[in-house]
Amino acid sequence: MHRTKVRVVEDVLDANNTIARANRDDFDRHGVTVVNLMSAPGAGKTRLLERALEGLADAGVRVGVLEGDVQGSFDADRLSALHVPVTQLNTDGGFGGECHLDANMVRSALPSVPLDEIDLLIVENVGNLVCPAEFRIGEDARIMVCSVTEGEDKPLKYPLMFRACELVLVNKIDLLEYLDFDVERLEHNIEQINPGVTRMRVSARTGEGVEGFRDWLAQLPERTAAPV
Amino acid sequence: MHRTKVRVVEDVLDANNTIARANRDDFDRHGVTVVNLMSAPGAGKTRLLERALEGLADAGVRVGVLEGDVQGSFDADRLSALHVPVTQLNTDGGFGGECHLDANMVRSALPSVPLDEIDLLIVENVGNLVCPAEFRIGEDARIMVCSVTEGEDKPLKYPLMFRACELVLVNKIDLLEYLDFDVERLEHNIEQINPGVTRMRVSARTGEGVEGFRDWLAQLPERTAAPV
Repeated sequence: MHRTKVRVVEDVLDANNTIARANRDDFDRHGVTVVNLMSAPGAGKTRLLERALEGLADAGVRVGVLEGDVQGSFDADRLSALHVPVTQLNTDGGFGGECHLDANMVRSALPSVPLDEIDLLIVENVGNLVCPAEFRIGEDARIMVCSVTEGEDKPLKYPLMFRACELVLVNKIDLLEYLDFDVERLEHNIEQINPGVTRMRVSARTGEGVEGFRDWLAQLPERTAAPV
Repeated sequence: MHRTKVRVVEDVLDANNTIARANRDDFDRHGVTVVNLMSAPGAGKTRLLERALEGLADAGVRVGVLEGDVQGSFDADRLSALHVPVTQLNTDGGFGGECHLDANMVRSALPSVPLDEIDLLIVENVGNLVCPAEFRIGEDARIMVCSVTEGEDKPLKYPLMFRACELVLVNKIDLLEYLDFDVERLEHNIEQINPGVTRMRVSARTGEGVEGFRDWLAQLPERTAAPV
């Protein structure tokens, strides 16, 4: 029975990777760089985006957002105030209330994403530290947001998520002085799980460190461009 | 394809409910009341338990804990310092890294739980606001912990979780004065999704409100006892 389960999981991930490659081809054809943004619920993904997207247009990067949620469009509504194209993708209807985005869900939303008009597509995944890390969607880079209110042990408890990403944003550092939280212990644990991964301390609330994140996003299309 | 997916999901949940009933029979036979404790990662489940379990022995309630994690035994190690029997259940080996506990996983752990020696079994689920709410494990009551650092919109974004529980603990209220967070808006949203559900404001850090949670747990075996 166990072996059957493993086989099924492998088949599902194989099928997902095939569709992720098709997404990737579409993104490449339109010259769009894609980021998969992941975190636990409430770690501050949307607020960080609100902060970071403000300056990206000035940096000459045209951004679009694909907003993944089980239900509702609260984050999409917030982000559309920034006048970037936002597409809502809900996982409850037709997918059975999924706790993550997969390549096929993203593919189903692509006709609504103006790929011709953007350089960078940010996909905000469903808030969850487990399954989103297992499903590639055709992205160039994966970012995870980890809030200092969540505990220093999270990289050790959810290693796949921390291992899967190219950038870890340690958010809500404005709260550090009110918490019994050892940010260096968190960073040590991140380093243990994903040695050398880029890390940034940020506060979506005060804006501290957000410029570094914005620069990272602005330079991503250049960094990931196919060598000529 | 959509209809097939729905059918598969229904079959999985049916099979889960059958095993949940078998768990329930075992719990009843041993006179054990069972709580399924759920939250997003880092909402403070373990620290709340550390606080609440301290006084439960004095109240004459013998407690055991079944600790669900994808990987590791960090929380179980913390809780065993309280000298209650703690059983670790990892979802990575044999289950493919599941993001939730289901009835079968709990069933597989029961031989390691001293049901004869406890009155109340607290099952700490994997940190996740989606899938844990879909799988009954044979519990008497479901509790969710919602931290004030997570945002007021969480009941609207993860309605199944908030609808599934008999008690909502609003945790980390010691941080309220440092946050742009409207706790009454959160409570209004909880009430919209699950009208009349019992709510408590608590701080696992300062201990505020934890006595009410402890009393709720202590009285649960009596409240859920089968009528004679």
